[in-house]
Parts: sequence; C-alpha cells; structure tokens
Amino acid sequence: MVSNVVSSIEVQLRDALGDRVSAAPELLESARTDRSGQVSDGPPAAFVSARSIADVQTTLRIANEHRIPVVPRGAGTGLAGGAIAGRGEIVLSTLEMNRILEVNADDELAVVEPGIINDDLNRVLAPRGLWFAPDPASKAISTIGGNIATNAGGLLCAKYGVTRESVLGLKVVRADGRLLTLGHRTVKGVTGLDLTALMIGSEGTLGVIVEATLKLRALPSGAASTIGAYFDTVEQAARASAVITASRLRPAAMELIGQSALRGIGDYLGQDLGDRGSYLLVQMDGAAAAAEADAAVAIIRSLGGDAELSSDPEIAERLFAIRRSFHPAMSARGTVLIEDVAVPRSQLPAMFQAIGEIERRYGMTIPTVAHAGDGNLHPNFIFEGSEVPPEVWAAADELFLACLRLGGTLTGEHGVGLLKKRWLGDELGEEQLELQRQIKGVFDPHGILNPGKVF
Amino acid sequence: MVSNVVSSIEVQLRDALGDRVSAAPELLESARTDRSGQVSDGPPAAFVSARSIADVQTTLRIANEHRIPVVPRGAGTGLAGGAIAGRGEIVLSTLEMNRILEVNADDELAVVEPGIINDDLNRVLAPRGLWFAPDPASKAISTIGGNIATNAGGLLCAKYGVTRESVLGLKVVRADGRLLTLGHRTVKGVTGLDLTALMIGSEGTLGVIVEATLKLRALPSGAASTIGAYFDTVEQAARASAVITASRLRPAAMELIGQSALRGIGDYLGQDLGDRGSYLLVQMDGAAAAAEADAAVAIIRSLGGDAELSSDPEIAERLFAIRRSFHPAMSARGTVLIEDVAVPRSQLPAMFQAIGEIERRYGMTIPTVAHAGDGNLHPNFIFEGSEVPPEVWAAADELFLACLRLGGTLTGEHGVGLLKKRWLGDELGEEQLELQRQIKGVFDPHGILNPGKVF
Repeated sequence: MVSNVVSSIEVQLRDALGDRVSAAPELLESARTDRSGQVSDGPPAAFVSARSIADVQTTLRIANEHRIPVVPRGAGTGLAGGAIAGRGEIVLSTLEMNRILEVNADDELAVVEPGIINDDLNRVLAPRGLWFAPDPASKAISTIGGNIATNAGGLLCAKYGVTRESVLGLKVVRADGRLLTLGHRTVKGVTGLDLTALMIGSEGTLGVIVEATLKLRALPSGAASTIGAYFDTVEQAARASAVITASRLRPAAMELIGQSALRGIGDYLGQDLGDRGSYLLVQMDGAAAAAEADAAVAIIRSLGGDAELSSDPEIAERLFAIRRSFHPAMSARGTVLIEDVAVPRSQLPAMFQAIGEIERRYGMTIPTVAHAGDGNLHPNFIFEGSEVPPEVWAAADELFLACLRLGGTLTGEHGVGLLKKRWLGDELGEEQLELQRQIKGVFDPHGILNPGKVF
Repeated sequence: MVSNVVSSIEVQLRDALGDRVSAAPELLESARTDRSGQVSDGPPAAFVSARSIADVQTTLRIANEHRIPVVPRGAGTGLAGGAIAGRGEIVLSTLEMNRILEVNADDELAVVEPGIINDDLNRVLAPRGLWFAPDPASKAISTIGGNIATNAGGLLCAKYGVTRESVLGLKVVRADGRLLTLGHRTVKGVTGLDLTALMIGSEGTLGVIVEATLKLRALPSGAASTIGAYFDTVEQAARASAVITASRLRPAAMELIGQSALRGIGDYLGQDLGDRGSYLLVQMDGAAAAAEADAAVAIIRSLGGDAELSSDPEIAERLFAIRRSFHPAMSARGTVLIEDVAVPRSQLPAMFQAIGEIERRYGMTIPTVAHAGDGNLHPNFIFEGSEVPPEVWAAADELFLACLRLGGTLTGEHGVGLLKKRWLGDELGEEQLELQRQIKGVFDPHGILNPGKVF
C-alpha cells in the first residue's frame, strides 16, 4: 500500500519533471546520510534534481497534494542530519541550481541560486574586491543554500558575523508550491515581520530556498598577520584568547586546540606535539593587522605562550595547517561524532575544564577545537563502527548540560537536524518549542517539509 | 456598554497593579500621539507604567481575558504611529523599567530593561571602552525597547549594522501573559527558529519586550576624521557618495543633504547656503580613519565637491551641525511628515531625481536628507495644521511607488505603524501579508497586541 503510493509519486513526479527525477538506487542511497554519519531507516522514493524555481514548485505541489514528505538537500555536508532522507520521502536537491544571477559591485550585493558552492562564489567575487564573509569550515564543499538553511558560522564570525548578517533577501517556495519573495536589496528595511531572518537557520522546515540576495563586503585590505602559539595547558590558552578579546582586539580568526586534539594532529602530521598542552591560532586582518598582531603576541607571551608571528603567506599556511589537520586526523582514528556547543567567551576555560572532567569520568578522550573568538567548541567523540555507542551519548549528554549551565547553547553553527532534537526542549523549554511548532504549522500545515527534523 | 467594559478594566487593573495604573487625563492624552504627528480617535482607557516583568504579565493576562487591546509604549518617539493608543485601549508603558541589569565586559554584552534610553546606556558603557552601536537619530530620547521593536537604524548602519545585528536575546511577554525567553548569551547559536530576529522590528504586534541581551562592540579607537563638502547639485553629491562606497571605503557615517533642505537649514542657522546645491558629510573612524578620509576627499574633489576635512572635534562638530539642524529647521517651518524610503545605494541619484520631479509636478518642496551610505532617504513634507493634506499624501504615494520601482523599500528604519499600512501590500504582496497575519495569529490569537498597526 505504502509502496504503491510511493511508486505512484515517482511516476507523477517523472510525468511532470522528466529527467530531473531519478530513482537510481545509488543516488537514493547517497541521500540517506550526510556528514553527521547518521543514516536513515531506508532509501527515499525519488530524487529530484531541480534546475529551476518552477521545478521546486512542481515538486512541492505534487508532494503536498499527496502528503509525501520532502527533504530539501544541497551538497549534503551538514553535520546534524538535517538533509537525510528516509523511506518513502522525496529528496529535493537544489545542487544543480548553482548560477550566479547578478553581482552588483555598487550595491555590494550578489543574487545567487542556492546550489552554488561557497568558495566558488568567492572566487568570482575576489577579482572585484568583494567577498561573501560567512566561512563555514566546509566552504569548499558546502552550498550557499545550505549555509543559509543552517545559519552557518565558521572561523570569522566574531569579526564578520554569522550567515544571517550577510543575507538581504530570499526567494522561498512554500510547502504548497507558492513562491515567496522576502527581504530587500537595501541595507535597511523594516517593512513587516522579518521573515528573511526567520527563514535563515530553519533547516528546511519552513520552505525551500531557491534564490538569495547576499550582502557582500569589501575584501580586507593589506596583508594578514598570523600567530601560532603553544601553551602548557588549554586553560592558559583559553585565558589568552579571552584577554585578547577583552583588550578589544578583534581577530578575524582565533582557533584553540586542546591537548588530546593536538596529540592526534601530531600523530597524523608525524610531528612531535606530544608535550604541547594547547595551540592557539590567531589571525588579524585589515588596516591595523600588524599592530593588532603585535599587541596579541604581547598578551600571549605574558600568559606563558610560545608565539610565532608572521605576515608571510607561506608561514601563515604552515601555522594554519595544524588547525586544518584536525578533522582528517580525527577521521583517521575512527568514526567521529562532532559536537558543536557554544558558551559565552568568558566561560571557555570553564567549558574546557568540564570536558576534561567528563573525559576522566568516562575514561575517554574528547579531542576538542574551539572558535575561541566566539566561544564555539567542537568536542569530538571517536568510536568504532557506524552506531554511536551509548556511553558516547551519555558523555555528550553531560557535555550539553554543562554547556547550558554555563549559559551556552546546544549548537553554535551546525543546527539541530536529527542529532540535537532530543535536547531541544532542555534549551528552549516546552512552551517555546510549542510556539515554534505552531509557526512551522503556518508555513507547512500538512507537515511535509523535512518532517522529523528539528521539532 | 463599551464605556462600562472600559471602566471595569481600569478597576481590575488597579486592583491588581495599584498605583502603576493611571487614568489621569493628561497622561491618557499624551499616549494618543507620538513623533509621527498622528493622533488617535480618542483617549485610551488606562495607562499602565510597568515596573517589572510581573506587571507586564498581569496587564496582559487581564487584557487578554477581556479582549481589550494593549498598546506597548516606550518613550513615544516613533515616527510611524506604532505606539499610539486609541479609545478604550490600554497603554502599557515600559519606560520605568529602565535598569541596566548586567554589563559583562569579557563577553561584550549587556542585559537591560527595555525602558533605558539609548544614550544613557552608552554613557555607562563608554568608560569600559564598550558601545551599543545602533544609533537612531532619536538616541538621546528613545528607548532600547523601542529601538528593538522597530529594528531602528540610524547614521552608522552601513558600517555597524542595524539594531537586529546587536541583539543576542530577548525576554518577551506574550499576549496571554506568558514569558518567553529567546536567543542566547553567545555570539553564535542556531537552536530552533530564530524568534529573536522575528521579534525585532515587530512593532509590538507579537509580544512586549521586557528584557534584552545586547551585543556590544569595542569603541572605535583613535580620532575620527570628518569631512564636510558642498556640491553644485545633489546628483553630484550622490555620485560622490556612491563612488566612496564603491571604492570600498567604509565611512561610519555618510549623510547627504539636498538643495531645498540645505536652503532651509541656512535660513534656520542664519547662514547663506542659498547658492549651495548639496552637502555631503562623511565621517571615518577606527585605525585607518585618516587614510580613508584622505581617499574620500580625493574622490569628492575629483567630482567637483568643495571639501573641508578635520580630525579636530570642534571643527567636526561644526561640520555635523549642518546635518543636525535639519529637523529643527524643518519643524520651524510648519508641521512635518517625515518619510523614510530606502533604495539600493546605486539608485540614490535616481531617487533624488524622482523626488525632484514630484516636487515640480506638485509645486511643493520636499526637503530631503539621506543616510547615503545605506541608501535610506528622509523626504520631508511640510504643511500647516495637524492633518496631512490630500496633495501631500498623493505626492508621498508617488514617492513610494518610485522607490519600489527602483528596487527599494517603503521604510528603512521608522517602521510601518499606522503611517505606512496602506502601502504594505504594494511591497509585500497579498500572499506574504496573509502569511505575516497568520504568524501574528500564533503569537496573539485574540488580536489584542497593538491592533490596527502594521497589518
């Protein structure tokens, strides 16, 4: 019965959309997972590769009529399971909608389709001295649509803001296939409720983003100054990062690597970092970069750090390589569950301490890196096999509660998806969660958009 | 009958809230208007001066039970009629809730009650090297709660963003009196739908803001550099401002004054500005201020501007005084209707041209200033008496449509309130307006919150 409905849906989609619809087993299989490592209960019914807004509208009209769930998907690089499609669902991919429709240098804006890769856009903008600032670590492989759907963060947020601050307007297809045009081409605009902001970070639960008007920035001028510094303990490094911020310096990036993470990176790179307690990477850009970097080095040294400073791009690349090797180093050790808590910056040392206690209590290592400038930590859990073991969930649970106690949030930049759902009520409370569900109901009365995610 | 319900409401409120409730005629009368010049149909039933969150909750519980409209109000400095209370309504003032609850320098945040005046907060923050960046022109008299309720803009938005970019979290009392805690104390956070952003700019239609967690910035370092420049025509000045932005300079403030506005200011100040076509004020701050100002002066001179540059605060004050005298100069001439359109920056010359054409066609002057850095224009209509004459509305109507044709928006920073309601559908379209009404319905099912405003 279910299978009849499902196959009839595929036929209807194919009648309307032709070769944009596929049921190729490997394609369906690929949509069962994303970079979170979660895998759905079974293959979806159909994979639609939309090439136009009209394709997205047609897909949603048919799906809505038959009450078939639709999972919007970009490059599938999400870390929370937000784009995973399960049995009988329709995958609606906007990856092929990847054109840049307009770059307006005078108004410092670009209009793009959702499937364009973040780095690809910036490669086009750079020769014009412009830049789309949001820089999730996945920027080489993730789409702008996905960045918007998760309100993606990254390394530069303390200085340049999260994705929400760089989106002026959106075109969104609603659950019933109607097209909504939200926001402005202007820097300011307060006409009615800010539905653009509401859509950003809604993880495919309110509508499908089919076009975005992006706010661009001038590329920072001059050479960046980069600092790499080793400390004996992560608490010292966390203190140095806190003092740098409190001194009103504003690094473009400030990354902190804890001890067990650093040891893993050393093994991976074949470098002996075993006796180093922590690594702090700081990058200053803009007109005052050199002076700000000098001030940061003075702070680092006064707090016991062993700092190297350079404005030479090659040396900077070497200093960055330590940080960049973190994810490959962890993946080389087993299956990785990447967590994503955020705490007020001043609580960074306390959060590292809490992680240390959980490590000791559970007898496991939890290699952790942090975007120290904004208090966003990524504790990693590493295990064998594809299922997250119960003791890892138990340790993660303690970690989330410690983060909430410190005034933090469950997810700084990855989103809720499937992975954080069960803790959502702990942070929002039942009343707010119910309000959020009601808002979802206004956009999607039949609940066909990414059901089971977030709420 | 109505009057019985009304007086019984006042009695119930007084039973619950004692001396926080007033029906003093002059107080009720004062709430019939704001700085828009609009006046409501009659005096409200009661004026509640809340001193605590509990007071706000009690007021809304009683009002919701009896389906009596509630008009949230701060300092009443709004320019769109959003805080005007009419016959039988309850005014809910949060002006006395004006404490600073916390300033956390390490986390660069402050927690405040909604009634604090923008300037008063910044006076407390300045000695710590911190700053709440949103700076509506009304900052000496407007509250943070009102700034948030309207997503207030100001002079510095192109560089420092609008109010939305400086609010991390909110406490909001819902229509039924329940308290909602929204957002984070962290720089990043993507747990569920971004209801904080939805609340910002909602003009009292979704809930009453009772506490805000604000994102602070480091005060810009060093001396600011200020430029005042006269041009023969407003088109020249608009072009200069566009080239300054396109050169990737980023002024803190860039203000443009059109010819009839400049003539009025000259009359008001007793200066002969009659032969000057336009005035452009540019202020650079931060580490590169001096170099950026030199570059801007070169652009201004190459485009025919007569520029004076100084980093002396006294001279800067004199250069600023021209701009600051605009509103008093206009008010001295009659009743003023201040409009608030915004266009993409590149369309600033075209918008000034459109205003010029409307001036000629209607045989009226429309003195205009613009926040040129972000394309936000304030065309002023000046008339006798308290009623806006039909020909002024007709001219304003043409002005709005010209703005929309240029890709702009009806209101850059003042909000919709009563004043822009009739044009809302022109910009949003009926479908989006209906969606917005449905969201409003989720927050306020009985429609008691600021009814008749915005929607």
